Amino acid sequence: MNVTRVGVIGASGYTGLELIKILLNHPYFKLSYLANSEGNISLDELHPSLKNVCDMQVQKVDVDDVASSCELVFLALPHKTAMEFVKPLIAKGLKVVDLSADYRLSLEAYEEFYTTHTDKKNLEHVVYGLPEMFRDKIKSASLVANPGCFPTCALLGLLPFMSKRVPNTPIIIDAKTGVSGAGKKLSDVTHFVNVNDNLFAYNPLTHRHAPEIAQKLGVSFDEVNFVPHLIPLTRGMISSIYIQVQKDIDAFSILKEFYKDEPFVRISKNPVDMKNVAGTNFCDIYVKQNRTSLEKGNIVFISSAIDNLLRGASSQAVVNANLMMGLDESCGIPNIAYVP
Amino acid sequence: MNVTRVGVIGASGYTGLELIKILLNHPYFKLSYLANSEGNISLDELHPSLKNVCDMQVQKVDVDDVASSCELVFLALPHKTAMEFVKPLIAKGLKVVDLSADYRLSLEAYEEFYTTHTDKKNLEHVVYGLPEMFRDKIKSASLVANPGCFPTCALLGLLPFMSKRVPNTPIIIDAKTGVSGAGKKLSDVTHFVNVNDNLFAYNPLTHRHAPEIAQKLGVSFDEVNFVPHLIPLTRGMISSIYIQVQKDIDAFSILKEFYKDEPFVRISKNPVDMKNVAGTNFCDIYVKQNRTSLEKGNIVFISSAIDNLLRGASSQAVVNANLMMGLDESCGIPNIAYVP
Amino acid sequence: MNVTRVGVIGASGYTGLELIKILLNHPYFKLSYLANSEGNISLDELHPSLKNVCDMQVQKVDVDDVASSCELVFLALPHKTAMEFVKPLIAKGLKVVDLSADYRLSLEAYEEFYTTHTDKKNLEHVVYGLPEMFRDKIKSASLVANPGCFPTCALLGLLPFMSKRVPNTPIIIDAKTGVSGAGKKLSDVTHFVNVNDNLFAYNPLTHRHAPEIAQKLGVSFDEVNFVPHLIPLTRGMISSIYIQVQKDIDAFSILKEFYKDEPFVRISKNPVDMKNVAGTNFCDIYVKQNRTSLEKGNIVFISSAIDNLLRGASSQAVVNANLMMGLDESCGIPNIAYVP
Amino acid sequence: MNVTRVGVIGASGYTGLELIKILLNHPYFKLSYLANSEGNISLDELHPSLKNVCDMQVQKVDVDDVASSCELVFLALPHKTAMEFVKPLIAKGLKVVDLSADYRLSLEAYEEFYTTHTDKKNLEHVVYGLPEMFRDKIKSASLVANPGCFPTCALLGLLPFMSKRVPNTPIIIDAKTGVSGAGKKLSDVTHFVNVNDNLFAYNPLTHRHAPEIAQKLGVSFDEVNFVPHLIPLTRGMISSIYIQVQKDIDAFSILKEFYKDEPFVRISKNPVDMKNVAGTNFCDIYVKQNRTSLEKGNIVFISSAIDNLLRGASSQAVVNANLMMGLDESCGIPNIAYVP
Repeated sequence: MNVTRVGVIGASGYTGLELIKILLNHPYFKLSYLANSEGNISLDELHPSLKNVCDMQVQKVDVDDVASSCELVFLALPHKTAMEFVKPLIAKGLKVVDLSADYRLSLEAYEEFYTTHTDKKNLEHVVYGLPEMFRDKIKSASLVANPGCFPTCALLGLLPFMSKRVPNTPIIIDAKTGVSGAGKKLSDVTHFVNVNDNLFAYNPLTHRHAPEIAQKLGVSFDEVNFVPHLIPLTRGMISSIYIQVQKDIDAFSILKEFYKDEPFVRISKNPVDMKNVAGTNFCDIYVKQNRTSLEKGNIVFISSAIDNLLRGASSQAVVNANLMMGLDESCGIPNIAYVP
Repeated sequence: MNVTRVGVIGASGYTGLELIKILLNHPYFKLSYLANSEGNISLDELHPSLKNVCDMQVQKVDVDDVASSCELVFLALPHKTAMEFVKPLIAKGLKVVDLSADYRLSLEAYEEFYTTHTDKKNLEHVVYGLPEMFRDKIKSASLVANPGCFPTCALLGLLPFMSKRVPNTPIIIDAKTGVSGAGKKLSDVTHFVNVNDNLFAYNPLTHRHAPEIAQKLGVSFDEVNFVPHLIPLTRGMISSIYIQVQKDIDAFSILKEFYKDEPFVRISKNPVDMKNVAGTNFCDIYVKQNRTSLEKGNIVFISSAIDNLLRGASSQAVVNANLMMGLDESCGIPNIAYVP
Repeated sequence: MNVTRVGVIGASGYTGLELIKILLNHPYFKLSYLANSEGNISLDELHPSLKNVCDMQVQKVDVDDVASSCELVFLALPHKTAMEFVKPLIAKGLKVVDLSADYRLSLEAYEEFYTTHTDKKNLEHVVYGLPEMFRDKIKSASLVANPGCFPTCALLGLLPFMSKRVPNTPIIIDAKTGVSGAGKKLSDVTHFVNVNDNLFAYNPLTHRHAPEIAQKLGVSFDEVNFVPHLIPLTRGMISSIYIQVQKDIDAFSILKEFYKDEPFVRISKNPVDMKNVAGTNFCDIYVKQNRTSLEKGNIVFISSAIDNLLRGASSQAVVNANLMMGLDESCGIPNIAYVP
Repeated sequence: MNVTRVGVIGASGYTGLELIKILLNHPYFKLSYLANSEGNISLDELHPSLKNVCDMQVQKVDVDDVASSCELVFLALPHKTAMEFVKPLIAKGLKVVDLSADYRLSLEAYEEFYTTHTDKKNLEHVVYGLPEMFRDKIKSASLVANPGCFPTCALLGLLPFMSKRVPNTPIIIDAKTGVSGAGKKLSDVTHFVNVNDNLFAYNPLTHRHAPEIAQKLGVSFDEVNFVPHLIPLTRGMISSIYIQVQKDIDAFSILKEFYKDEPFVRISKNPVDMKNVAGTNFCDIYVKQNRTSLEKGNIVFISSAIDNLLRGASSQAVVNANLMMGLDESCGIPNIAYVP
């Protein structure tokens, strides 16, 4: 099997580090280029945990260097910065997996919830990198928009039930995330003293991941009631989802059948937890129906768990890269949890 | 002002300790009797944090001793055990605040969700001790059933909006609680290694606090979709509530108006958190309306936070005792949070 | 009993908040003035947990306002800033409890470990506010230097044994502190993701609290080997101390005797923990002798625990203020721990 | 390269799980046998995180089955139980890595600190499995006693400096460990509510790992002053070590030189932390000298960090197995930390 040379732009942050960790052990990808905004630092200075593991240098990002060093590149950059790099990298013929929000939404939605889009051309042919939805398209894509962590977690929980959903009823997604999702940037919110022994909702009903969820579900933005909560732990995310479905369904069987061939979705008979997925690309899903007899349907409670930095970002990005390069999607993807 | 002699039966557990801590500083209650199932131990052996603070002895519980030592007694006992003591204590003329589940439900509901009731007589005249609902009745009660922690938190969030709710739509209560709510008993679930860095739902849609919430709201059990989650922190609880209300309401004003004279409910302009209520009897509530235009109404998101051991148990019990004894309900009640 | 009007300058930080919380419940102090560097904010905007508890305004600090509002003032300011205020406040006849490091050391030591001292005159007559060492002097002081948290914890553990110590042997203080000791300021070190599941030493053998400990013990700086460690919890501090003492001593009896009349030191037969002191002014101390027969003595292990924000700062400051105003030192001082 | 069939007896606990996780990804070991005391359960029922990863069955332990399934076996059993299995397994010609304490001490010390030894014959030829000390002997051993977590961490910190140590001065080891070291067994000590926001020493100066450290250092038991502390985190361990060394040494150079060829020891210029080693077999070590001029030497502070479940147990066990089978010791050993 040929080896593909790959690069990571945005090596400083948490998702950059996770990409590097996966790529260092990947059998068919060779990590050949690392960059951040400053450059000129060794990888083990940037991430001391990698001392004696990898002695690469981190460059100041340069598009020509990327092009000469790699066939495929991961962008772990903030939105807006990402699209500035996607344009020239695609022009130079590279394959790109973009972990930012820049190519996840329609143009209209992006400009409503984020900012002006400066690369409409590539936005037209981008593929949304949720393999369970778009596996075949990903295989032939040159640009993949890696999904947000909340959308990944919520969509995988919701997809099996959308065809059974009672129309015009609310979709409620009460999400709980660890603090690594907020990134490395300092803020009062992520100060240890503020998070420890605490818990709170943030951006309730207005978080920018809601339109991403709505678009992929094919429902209007207003149908999605999305409230994320910050939890005092480092990594992991659970979506507690409540929707109304037709009265006669067997939710567990529907769920099991829907994902029966999926390598990275596990159906659970007990409520899911974070420790079983932290460190892996798995999404664990649990479902329970209420006895509630509403006018038109029943409530089902769906609980789906992922590692926000892996399935919600970096390992899913490598799955997408595997598919783009014609590899088995499981190749080099972490599946053994950190537990305990 | 006369001083009332009070006792605590069930001094070993978390809620027993919280009762003792409040009563030691109460200006008009004199803590005169402490008991647990074993007895014969000093309070500071049982709770080393009280060394040099209180040198009382903890007795093996004896109804005659209680009657001769106290005018009012708090029962911090498991359900079923509690009602065995309520009967003789009421018979002896004591006032009782029962922190167990034994007198919170109708007979039918109790026997469906718990066990056979052995004190139907007192069940008939018990008052449910949520002051914001039943303040006047509590004042003349001899037996008060102190509400469960989840019902306290959920009811305070829901009550202002029930008259605006669209009938026959689901009430969704996604609750998050710290681990102290599970009590001192050892179990795999509460082992540190299992809780730390973890998060999970438990008893989804089947928890016994759901019928308690439903009965006080006057809705059928099936309308309440209640899912508690265990969070890696010690004390505090947040209910994230989603209901459908009429389209034209101003949720924030309704909330503010509803609680305008309440000393222990605070309306918050920002999403509530646990640290602002931990250590106090406050319930903090936040509300936000969605733009969603459903057929008959809008979703509102309500977030209410309490200290599960205080407002969810022990400080609310002392508020009830204050009311039963004709005192100002704020008397001796903690209102300064532990934060940071 | 007359009421003393008191003020807090530095109302924004953790120790400022703790001072306010204590003073709001103090029977003989009336909180009459609050200031921070910005001013013009209500207390409950600054500290939302105090909503519905106290409706004071926080001023921009002004010495004349302080002087007209208070008889005694607490300074919860960074070092260097503090001495700029001490000078005029003392000149105006106020009593001052300074929580900064500005008056804790000799002039020489201060200028070696901190910066140039700008108030040498007051430095001459300041009293070090550790009541167990300097109670009588504190009673007549107009300026008290409130001890650092680490020195408070280490000194209370060491004092009983200094007369039995083998001369010229190392004093080893391995301290562990919660994160609130680092204050509210943002830094990579206190980001939740960096602290959670982590543990590390910082400033080993060079921390500025070492000379403060050495001076109060009357030993040379070099004899004190002080290494603080950051622990993933919010409040509390334990010093694990190792010293060599004469062979024939009974360490437990010495400890018990030394503190037999002290209201805020408790001797423990089991290793101390944080939860028993968090929320209080207590210092809990445990001692254990090794069998080790060294040339001249035995090792003793001393473990002392305090709440770093209370006994290590704010409640000790109020004890000092009590003494300065002729009150019982226990007056209004928290003694009931937050546990569980 | 031939593949060695290996087994794990004691598959239920934390170290059993870690062994399994490593062995599943090992290129030259084939996990061929799993047992616990009950048996008759699938691996993914026992450890749900391994669902869809490994579908092995866990047997009730049987010596003949082990012998027919494996060439080498890991025992992750409590002391006393372990030696009951070692005897027949060695008799059947298997190689054994024993993770218990049964073969770590001299007969005399074992019987003083643990219990009667029932396999004195194998105790005579066992090799202590710290590769940095006994690599060559491990290579030809049939029975390796895998070191305790505290001894591994402390010895690796101390070894480079023992030849420079001032004789007859105390060795002080102030250790801090996460809760996974206490195992899965339920106890009040490991209840989440007791550990969270808490910190305490346990078994100070009397812990059974002290004689293990002393014997390997070749000093008397009494010279080792070992105090472990429980820290509110799951995995990781730091030893803060204080010893007196000759005045003229350069501690950092000594450390660097001592470990210059070691693949799993990293020398750090900054104080070590847990997150850089958690998930790996690395031991990170930092050293700092005090200016203290004692009579005969100086104090050095050594800080060494390991993952207590990996370098302190399971990954070190696999390193030992690698050496016993003639493999490169790094083969299949985790070196990429879980951070963040």
